[in-house]
Amino acid sequence: MDFRGAHIISVKQFERTDVDKVFQVADNMEPYAHRKRVSNVLGGAILGNMFFEPSTRTRVSFGCAFNLLGGHVRETTDVKTSSITKGESLYDTARVISGYSDVIVMRHPKVASVAEFAKASRVPVINGGDGPNEHPSQALLDLYTIKKELESKQRKIDGMHIAMVGDLKHGRTVHSLSQLLLLYEDIKLTLISPQELRMPAAIVAELQANGHEVVETEDMEAGLSDNDTVYLTRIQEERFTNRLEADIYRGRFRLNQAIYTRNCQPNTVIMHPLPRDSREDANELDNDLNQHPNLAIFRQTDNGVLVRMALFALILDVADKVDQAAADVGWYTERRF
Amino acid sequence: MDFRGAHIISVKQFERTDVDKVFQVADNMEPYAHRKRVSNVLGGAILGNMFFEPSTRTRVSFGCAFNLLGGHVRETTDVKTSSITKGESLYDTARVISGYSDVIVMRHPKVASVAEFAKASRVPVINGGDGPNEHPSQALLDLYTIKKELESKQRKIDGMHIAMVGDLKHGRTVHSLSQLLLLYEDIKLTLISPQELRMPAAIVAELQANGHEVVETEDMEAGLSDNDTVYLTRIQEERFTNRLEADIYRGRFRLNQAIYTRNCQPNTVIMHPLPRDSREDANELDNDLNQHPNLAIFRQTDNGVLVRMALFALILDVADKVDQAAADVGWYTERRF
Amino acid sequence: MDFRGAHIISVKQFERTDVDKVFQVADNMEPYAHRKRVSNVLGGAILGNMFFEPSTRTRVSFGCAFNLLGGHVRETTDVKTSSITKGESLYDTARVISGYSDVIVMRHPKVASVAEFAKASRVPVINGGDGPNEHPSQALLDLYTIKKELESKQRKIDGMHIAMVGDLKHGRTVHSLSQLLLLYEDIKLTLISPQELRMPAAIVAELQANGHEVVETEDMEAGLSDNDTVYLTRIQEERFTNRLEADIYRGRFRLNQAIYTRNCQPNTVIMHPLPRDSREDANELDNDLNQHPNLAIFRQTDNGVLVRMALFALILDVADKVDQAAADVGWYTERRF
Repeated sequence: MDFRGAHIISVKQFERTDVDKVFQVADNMEPYAHRKRVSNVLGGAILGNMFFEPSTRTRVSFGCAFNLLGGHVRETTDVKTSSITKGESLYDTARVISGYSDVIVMRHPKVASVAEFAKASRVPVINGGDGPNEHPSQALLDLYTIKKELESKQRKIDGMHIAMVGDLKHGRTVHSLSQLLLLYEDIKLTLISPQELRMPAAIVAELQANGHEVVETEDMEAGLSDNDTVYLTRIQEERFTNRLEADIYRGRFRLNQAIYTRNCQPNTVIMHPLPRDSREDANELDNDLNQHPNLAIFRQTDNGVLVRMALFALILDVADKVDQAAADVGWYTERRF
Repeated sequence: MDFRGAHIISVKQFERTDVDKVFQVADNMEPYAHRKRVSNVLGGAILGNMFFEPSTRTRVSFGCAFNLLGGHVRETTDVKTSSITKGESLYDTARVISGYSDVIVMRHPKVASVAEFAKASRVPVINGGDGPNEHPSQALLDLYTIKKELESKQRKIDGMHIAMVGDLKHGRTVHSLSQLLLLYEDIKLTLISPQELRMPAAIVAELQANGHEVVETEDMEAGLSDNDTVYLTRIQEERFTNRLEADIYRGRFRLNQAIYTRNCQPNTVIMHPLPRDSREDANELDNDLNQHPNLAIFRQTDNGVLVRMALFALILDVADKVDQAAADVGWYTERRF
Repeated sequence: MDFRGAHIISVKQFERTDVDKVFQVADNMEPYAHRKRVSNVLGGAILGNMFFEPSTRTRVSFGCAFNLLGGHVRETTDVKTSSITKGESLYDTARVISGYSDVIVMRHPKVASVAEFAKASRVPVINGGDGPNEHPSQALLDLYTIKKELESKQRKIDGMHIAMVGDLKHGRTVHSLSQLLLLYEDIKLTLISPQELRMPAAIVAELQANGHEVVETEDMEAGLSDNDTVYLTRIQEERFTNRLEADIYRGRFRLNQAIYTRNCQPNTVIMHPLPRDSREDANELDNDLNQHPNLAIFRQTDNGVLVRMALFALILDVADKVDQAAADVGWYTERRF
């Protein structure tokens, strides 16, 4: 695809070369995200960061990525403060807001709303999550993390084994990540979930049609063995029609130090899209793994900034100019790790 | 008036030369709003964008205008997050907030609150809407749009015919626009509304005293003929004491393709302050006109950025320096239209 | 202490030389806060302004201070829009958010939450208020104001007399200010409050152990005499278990023109942490003193910007570089006083 001026609505729009391109630009963003260098390549540009559903992490991550390229951020954080409550159509909102900015990130609770919005927008739109449907930058940062973690262990995405654990029915991130994995070869996916929260059959079928091996199981400990990556998810209680039903599943599949040591390969990477539910009755990924070197969950969110910088740079066609507009950083930039 | 350091509270403070000045500076802002050039003339300046009543469009438009001149924006979007709930007076809020910024835009649900706030402020204040009372930048952008649209058709504001349609009783925008039209000559206004939602008699009297011709009617189709501009408005349900009463009027005056073609002159400009209510029972301006070349509603919101840039530039006395502080734009700036 | 990269969590971490250092850097920030000069020393840096409890004044003051040094601000204003409602731990929030910014200001309703957050953060954290507990930048700006006000009258903090009035039990600011006063010598504190809202005994004991003289009284008029500074506070109704109980005390201790003139020394400085409650039944500091030259309450909030700029400059180690990165200001900067 041609990223220049493109909308980013769905992972389905990417071919493997597109993903490679995003990852290569993301690699180049590291000195800026790590505050070794500062770039002003988008100095004067404006991001419309339109969040019609709350999401602190995604919102701040996109905003920060744009600031790191030198741009301004104008933001909306609440659907109730918007004209939508006065009966305004997505078409009108898009026509208006796209007159205020150079690129828009939009999150909205309604499936397909962002695509509809993008159709009317005069500037490029990135889907920041349309309800339970798509969240392409999350899928890209997940895959980018897998790539970097595996490469540091001399492995790669092609041929890898990955276990996905938890609420695979409602988890938007595992759906999108599975879609991206269709671009790769010879992957084994072990899908660990309650029977009622299994990965949608259509996705399983697609994975298999692509030549991937898919194993579905309710036996977590057996499923954990022999994986390069374990990708855990939270029970998405907000997606249940009856929230009480979520209580049945919460806390059923947990990874902690003991279970990890007993079942996983010693260099299995641990991932989670966050937020993880750290309340006692949930705790799908225990805090006793917080210091584990294979716990990649915060490298994931850090990578999110790189991937989002890459998307902005590609869409606004400045990927080759970032370094020219760069300078050294003069303030305290040490990080505690 | 001297714009330097002035508060912008009401359209009544403008003479015709003042409006001309704003429009002339707004014209000069076009290359910046259209991302041909980027200016840093207000680099380091801070806008306090204080919205004590929700308004995504106006808030983002002002913020974007300030960013386009290179400045920072600090924002408040909700009255509940403010000290006002702890019994703080507008005087105190103004004294404090004006110590944080170079200029303030304030929106507040209470009539005359912004004028009261401005009296205590140490920096210039722009009224971003004080309840049903005033919203001067909206009136300016409406008139600026009329001027540009008519000029593109070799006509001008003096001598024009304009129809205003809908809730003319509560519509702040038609009141303010009427005030501005007092600065011009020989205008014919056709006021189309339900009997109960007529333009306030005082405004009608002022228009007539100024030599304008005013026709009031409930017959929309007759009223639409022979106009340079038709300005539609939404039923302002939030201004009704009894919201249910608003339902009686909603949907009563609608403009769509068929009605337009049947009644309007072929180059009649269609305007609306937005948001338009696109719910089926309202739909005062139908989507079937979205592609019509005379539909100026999104040019209106685009012009809002120009007019607000002009106000900032004049108040902060940098109108003549914008171009000196300018550079070329290096990112993707094509727009879909 | 070494400010470079430090967390600012509590006033207890300061020695007198630290406070001196902050005040000296704050003095140097004046040309920037007063818009004589503009500095870009933090150009490209990002502040994470995380407010999980509303506070317009503190939030905007910190954001403005960061902008005045040239940096970007990413903001969160509402706990409900955050992952915390999905069971996320402060540890996770801190790990994630600290990957997005160079420094974080955090406000949170829970005592000790900011310290817990800071422990997991990879970047420096400033406590912007953790419930009724600490708010160190407020204490610093209060003391900085006292210092500047007294110096303008050829007096100093050592040896001064100060009266604190109102809700001394719940008032976080008077607690923190008292802590800072332990770094100074020979101070007389007159604590005027209802018996039930007295300063906590532990703080009184500390002040006395430090050699300060403490007088506790319910007799306001007697207590007001012979002070360099009178520091008034609002009844903190939101900190009462039973809000109705707050009504008993509201309005009991009031300072107005007549009481001031009758009881205070002619150059007694009047302070208040704001917001003051200007509702008729409260009105602990009357508006009839608004024009009094000794009323320092708005100089207090102005000083807040200087002190916060100083904290950022010290933590990010740019205090010596601010002037090098400076330029003249080209826009209208006159202030109405």
